[in-house]
Amino acid sequence: MVQVTFLPGKRAIEVSEGSTVMEAAIAAGVPLESTCGGRGTCGKCKVQVDPTLVDPALDMGKFLSDSERKAGWVLACRYKVAEDLIVNLSESKDAHQRKTNLSQLEDIDLVPSVKKYELKLAKPTVHDQTPDWDRLMAALPSPKIHFNRTLAAGLPQILHQSNFHVTAVVDGNALLAVEPGDTTQKSHGLAIDIGTTTTVVYLVDLLQGKILDSDALTNPQRVFGADVISRITHAAKGPEQLQQLQTVVVEGLNTIISRLCKRNDLKQEDIYQAVVVGNTTMSHLFLGIDPTYLAPAPFIPVFRQSVQVKAAELGLNILKTGHVVVVPNVAGYVGADTVGVMIAAKVDQLPGYTLAVDIGTNGEIILAGGKRILTCSTAAGPAFEGAEIKYGMRAADGAIERVKITDDVELAVIGNAKPIGICGSGLIDAIAQMAEAGVIHESGRIVNTPEDLAKLPARIQERIRKAEGGFEFVLAWGKDTGLKEDVVLTQKDIRELQLAKGAILAGIKILMKEMGIGLEQLDRVLLAGAFGNYISKEAALRIGLLPDVPLEKIRAIGNAAGDGAKMILLSKEERKRAALLAELAEHLELSTRSDFQEEFIEALSFEK
Amino acid sequence: MVQVTFLPGKRAIEVSEGSTVMEAAIAAGVPLESTCGGRGTCGKCKVQVDPTLVDPALDMGKFLSDSERKAGWVLACRYKVAEDLIVNLSESKDAHQRKTNLSQLEDIDLVPSVKKYELKLAKPTVHDQTPDWDRLMAALPSPKIHFNRTLAAGLPQILHQSNFHVTAVVDGNALLAVEPGDTTQKSHGLAIDIGTTTTVVYLVDLLQGKILDSDALTNPQRVFGADVISRITHAAKGPEQLQQLQTVVVEGLNTIISRLCKRNDLKQEDIYQAVVVGNTTMSHLFLGIDPTYLAPAPFIPVFRQSVQVKAAELGLNILKTGHVVVVPNVAGYVGADTVGVMIAAKVDQLPGYTLAVDIGTNGEIILAGGKRILTCSTAAGPAFEGAEIKYGMRAADGAIERVKITDDVELAVIGNAKPIGICGSGLIDAIAQMAEAGVIHESGRIVNTPEDLAKLPARIQERIRKAEGGFEFVLAWGKDTGLKEDVVLTQKDIRELQLAKGAILAGIKILMKEMGIGLEQLDRVLLAGAFGNYISKEAALRIGLLPDVPLEKIRAIGNAAGDGAKMILLSKEERKRAALLAELAEHLELSTRSDFQEEFIEALSFEK
Repeated sequence: MVQVTFLPGKRAIEVSEGSTVMEAAIAAGVPLESTCGGRGTCGKCKVQVDPTLVDPALDMGKFLSDSERKAGWVLACRYKVAEDLIVNLSESKDAHQRKTNLSQLEDIDLVPSVKKYELKLAKPTVHDQTPDWDRLMAALPSPKIHFNRTLAAGLPQILHQSNFHVTAVVDGNALLAVEPGDTTQKSHGLAIDIGTTTTVVYLVDLLQGKILDSDALTNPQRVFGADVISRITHAAKGPEQLQQLQTVVVEGLNTIISRLCKRNDLKQEDIYQAVVVGNTTMSHLFLGIDPTYLAPAPFIPVFRQSVQVKAAELGLNILKTGHVVVVPNVAGYVGADTVGVMIAAKVDQLPGYTLAVDIGTNGEIILAGGKRILTCSTAAGPAFEGAEIKYGMRAADGAIERVKITDDVELAVIGNAKPIGICGSGLIDAIAQMAEAGVIHESGRIVNTPEDLAKLPARIQERIRKAEGGFEFVLAWGKDTGLKEDVVLTQKDIRELQLAKGAILAGIKILMKEMGIGLEQLDRVLLAGAFGNYISKEAALRIGLLPDVPLEKIRAIGNAAGDGAKMILLSKEERKRAALLAELAEHLELSTRSDFQEEFIEALSFEK
Repeated sequence: MVQVTFLPGKRAIEVSEGSTVMEAAIAAGVPLESTCGGRGTCGKCKVQVDPTLVDPALDMGKFLSDSERKAGWVLACRYKVAEDLIVNLSESKDAHQRKTNLSQLEDIDLVPSVKKYELKLAKPTVHDQTPDWDRLMAALPSPKIHFNRTLAAGLPQILHQSNFHVTAVVDGNALLAVEPGDTTQKSHGLAIDIGTTTTVVYLVDLLQGKILDSDALTNPQRVFGADVISRITHAAKGPEQLQQLQTVVVEGLNTIISRLCKRNDLKQEDIYQAVVVGNTTMSHLFLGIDPTYLAPAPFIPVFRQSVQVKAAELGLNILKTGHVVVVPNVAGYVGADTVGVMIAAKVDQLPGYTLAVDIGTNGEIILAGGKRILTCSTAAGPAFEGAEIKYGMRAADGAIERVKITDDVELAVIGNAKPIGICGSGLIDAIAQMAEAGVIHESGRIVNTPEDLAKLPARIQERIRKAEGGFEFVLAWGKDTGLKEDVVLTQKDIRELQLAKGAILAGIKILMKEMGIGLEQLDRVLLAGAFGNYISKEAALRIGLLPDVPLEKIRAIGNAAGDGAKMILLSKEERKRAALLAELAEHLELSTRSDFQEEFIEALSFEK
């Protein structure tokens, strides 16, 4: 056995000689980026080791430059551990960290399901032999509390030590804790958004209705693949693998919780509830429920309703008896996160017709109005998150996020760094500009005939060139990039985006058709998700990602899924509403619609 | 570390050198008899080891004969382990094993809460994307079943492997299991009676309402002391000790369950429910709930209601998701076992007034009639179980169980063996006969004046003699005993019995006074417990253990507590009734009654 230590964090693990660094990272529960599931084809799992330990003959595809190799960078899935090893992780900043939302939620009634009661109990005598539990219950206003063996077990000690002056923590029909003395001035909960890519945790003051802090981490399940299908495939291998996915995501959340507790001077037991949103696959995996049949048609989830379990059962580090509430989902690919969006955007309460689109690793679409809520999901694909795009990357330092084509190409890069790739919002911008400038045809094809090229400015013409897999467009020349090589958009990249945006627009069109409304009846288009914050509305309209509504009808609403979780945490009325909305929602399975193909093909066009 | 192996069973444990055999037995979870809790004062923990390993100088009090010492018998609490050791346990037969009750319960409606449903589910399609859980629920007649994460986790595999033909096992609002195919012809449960001394488990066919088998074991908690107070004292030391008591009793039950499963060709998962009765301390310990404040006045239990928990939570080896139902208790010393007696004896349904007495390690008394149920408990003391009686022993081979005094003393001994001690029923018989023959005064004093002695037959006179602690009566001469020494009843033994029977009779009198009835209004006196089966009614009346009713009004009803558990297992109506009866019961705390002392003193007499 040899020891592998991961920096920063110094997490160490013993593995057998010959294991890959990726295998060690999985065993150690260290999150590592990977979109190919360890097949050595995505090049995302770069880590740094002592360069003298690297065999120069080791094949790591085209993913590493010479200088990277010299500095000890290797692919974690290719590098096999031969002796004790220290591994430095290249941490990319999460999109979340660009903007933290610590705003106060003002427009909901503050009625958390968690309540605290200070109780001064009469002491027992031979004339009043009421059992401890009954004594406590008689003093509480809620009459129907379930017996809790774990709490009953230690109740006598707490009552006697506190001289029968205690605070009871109650959540619905459950007694969560009995704390000595008066602790009614403290009550905390967590809103948790488990994204396929990033997990975010918000620490919430349940008495003030205030978001005290938040923190995020790459979803540690990423080592099993970037998309939900790779993770379902892993979970489907057996109960052990399913458990592995459950464990790593909970461990990741526990890492965040421990940071939040430390920063805010709280103990694990001070957190009484956690409300969780995520897509249907994330909900299944978080609960350790087999997601196998979500992957193939007919895409069947195991459950739809809201699930409440004790934290200890899942291993989540809040009060052991505290409840973890997983928000209901609608269908296999319309999850709790989408219900969170419905809650936060109040789609059921807005006048007229509301379209809400949440573009993440998948694209979920909600169309609400006329007392109906329609949903569908499309394989938006990971294109918007940088996967399957040659120079695609997440919204981190060095990512091109804005593109302008005039006489030449102008770029805005995150962190004002030299560009090393392009993120989703940059991709949409680039292609919108390319369509507008005539670099691509309506069909999406990069222009290459002399006549077409002649219409373009000289410097733009230079950027169009034939490469191995077809034509490509140079966004940034090697001399100006952080990679020392050109950053390009290939014809294939454009096709990927085209398929993604086509699917979304077709989905929207089908929902509108089902609802029986036209473009002019659409009162608003809400863009949920971090992506919605950064996207250029004009560009989204130009490439036909969204239906052709006036610009002012389009509004970004931020991490609405997370906001929904916060609202459910702070108000049991919102929790009821979540159940109602999930129940009310009519899910349209696009693959069953005979009109989908037609809408889809039509939606592929970049026609102005 | 040295290894200690216990025979039979070959359970082995590693302990540090210098540990006692009793400590090793506790660590190994091997039940060992002990009434003093390891203080070396009861002499009950005899075990046999290789004689050559025993230091002849080892002090083992007066408890071992020379021949026993030579054969390697030692006290487990005194013998310290110096090297690897094999220990032979002297297993005494449990009272239970003398008579097994495998009778069919005929007079209750067979409506177990556990139900099975064969389901042939429609397979999902893209046009019917109902989640697996909802699909199952829609096929079940009970609409309000709670979501069960553990079952949901593996549901897809079971559905697909069985081609959507399954059997659902339902208990109330809980889904317990989903079994492939049609398994509706099998359904089993357990009725468990956790006595302070003996634990009994009945295997029940829930479809036929039939007791298939039963088995018993000494309660392994005995190594922490024979009575509930010693065990409470141990549990009060801290959570670890409390856990220890919980663990050993569950392990003991698991031993029985494994035997029952083996004999009846069942798997652990085939047993869907367990209904448990026991006194209040046993219920607390079984559930791992702190019993500390049951011991000192005002004797406060933590809970009174029926408690239902998942088997896996307690570690009981039935179906993991199956329910363990602990029957409600009435007060600190009137437990679920007494409620079981109420159920089995149908005290609320019989005409007139019913007195039921359950004499075990404690004495619980029920007086029902006029729509009231009164209960009290008395420290009957372990006298009836042989503790605190010089030659007292449990009802096992060699125990005197019947005594007749004519010209001389005639004895009936269990197993037709030579007597080695006297059990509870023998004790009552002996003292009744001694009172009747004039060997003792009304006051309980052994006669010793010349005038009194002169009235007795010569051979009886010879048996009265003065010993160290006062007078004693020889029941069997050394030459006739298995001990090679005289078996006697001492004045102190008689006082022990007198205190015990006095407390019970006084308790009965107080309940009758509270109920406002006289002797003639008492329609029946029911004797519950194994003890009631063996006791001579005449003798019980003669010594004044029971109120002076005609003999034909007294009836032994066997292990009514266990029968109550079986009935609750077989009928959810009986389970509701148990909750009602426990709630209805009015508990009288005798220590608060100013008239108790007077009744008690009056009840001490052996007046005819």
